Amino acid sequence: MISSTDNAKIKDIIKLKTKKRFRDEAGLFISEGETSVMEIPVELIDEIFVSEDYKGSLPDITGEPVQVSSKVFEKISDTVTPQGILATVKKKETGTEEILTAENNRPVLFLERLQDPGNLGTIVRMAEAAGVAGIIMSADTADIYNPKTVRATMGSLYRVPFSYCGDFIEELEKAKKAGIKVYATTPSDAKDLYECDYTKKSAFIIGNESAGVSDKAAEIADERVKIPMEGKVESLNAAVAAALISFEVRRQRTVSGGLIN
Amino acid sequence: MISSTDNAKIKDIIKLKTKKRFRDEAGLFISEGETSVMEIPVELIDEIFVSEDYKGSLPDITGEPVQVSSKVFEKISDTVTPQGILATVKKKETGTEEILTAENNRPVLFLERLQDPGNLGTIVRMAEAAGVAGIIMSADTADIYNPKTVRATMGSLYRVPFSYCGDFIEELEKAKKAGIKVYATTPSDAKDLYECDYTKKSAFIIGNESAGVSDKAAEIADERVKIPMEGKVESLNAAVAAALISFEVRRQRTVSGGLIN
Repeated sequence: MISSTDNAKIKDIIKLKTKKRFRDEAGLFISEGETSVMEIPVELIDEIFVSEDYKGSLPDITGEPVQVSSKVFEKISDTVTPQGILATVKKKETGTEEILTAENNRPVLFLERLQDPGNLGTIVRMAEAAGVAGIIMSADTADIYNPKTVRATMGSLYRVPFSYCGDFIEELEKAKKAGIKVYATTPSDAKDLYECDYTKKSAFIIGNESAGVSDKAAEIADERVKIPMEGKVESLNAAVAAALISFEVRRQRTVSGGLIN
Repeated sequence: MISSTDNAKIKDIIKLKTKKRFRDEAGLFISEGETSVMEIPVELIDEIFVSEDYKGSLPDITGEPVQVSSKVFEKISDTVTPQGILATVKKKETGTEEILTAENNRPVLFLERLQDPGNLGTIVRMAEAAGVAGIIMSADTADIYNPKTVRATMGSLYRVPFSYCGDFIEELEKAKKAGIKVYATTPSDAKDLYECDYTKKSAFIIGNESAGVSDKAAEIADERVKIPMEGKVESLNAAVAAALISFEVRRQRTVSGGLIN
């Protein structure tokens, strides 16, 4: 049993928890809590750490989990009331190519410079429920492997295809070339969200929480759409906007003769 | 200029920031930042506090703002990068009666034991945009006057009618008596959200983040609705769910001959 925070493995977990650069270098991230750990595909599990008094379920992996003292577990945990189980998990992204060429009429979400880790997690969770084909993110979007984001995805992280991309504009061009109609969500010069037809494959650019979609990205889009709003509200929370869009697409796909693929 | 945190006014602000009970007793809450403070209806402003180096706009009130040192401002501020202006604001709720008897076809949201302050703020902001008639909350819902919630409402707090109620079940009964069709949002035994007609006045019960709508509340409802979901998702974020519902009502109200009232 590990009972010192000076242990090399423990030091690494703390770095995985707090430092994006370390997660990038190691190709690992952490996921915590019984439900969350049980949702990790076993082939992605790197190592399991349990508190000395953990009594819950364990994933079906070869090898024993690493036992740590309660005190050490409190240190590695990112939550106020730790459940006593934590995994280091191998990162795995789907290529943008695969997301863009999937033969279905599910929508693609392009996230441009989204900053809030909680919003990002909520979007991933909602995207699975809405049947989104995949999420493509600009390199400067919040880190999907941030513990707060991982938690907010409620396991959808392992089921929704996603990818960070080097050149966001280039990926938008690729989407257009693949025959996908690209919509920029922006308040100015835009059609009402509910007036467009999304029964053919569509993609939506969701912009940064305060700056919105960049001019460059909006120019490439085939169409601009806005969510109609009453009162003095200038914009909606990014996760709320992404959900309204994704579920409107789903509604239209359902109405037009059932969900196709 | 106030330069000591021992000052009685400063002590009170810190209590307003952190303690719900103190906000309740004083009938006041705090709102921070230039944009936020400028959105407060002047008749609700109790007092304005500015940092010694504040150069931004000031609301049009009689009397001078209270100047405090930068150090003291950091103490009273709830943000990492304070903007140097903060107001103590008088609480003001709309009666549930007024929300339920308003003659329009806008929906009413009933929030039952919603716990996350950020979710609540996002709901209030979204509700203004969707044209919600008002929000009625169970007494044990998160405090709308929590600084985090106030911030997340982006000013909608002053424009969306809302009310906490002593007896949640009783208010649901009142809604039914007022001719409002009450829907419980719950995954079991429920119709698809997009299959119901909301062009007549409707109300929706949104439940607690983990427990959902209580059995008691669901029993009173005229109908149960669920948001159709794909994949392995068990539920959506409460603010996302409330937004999907409120905007579906808005969409139907628009389609059926324009927004009525």
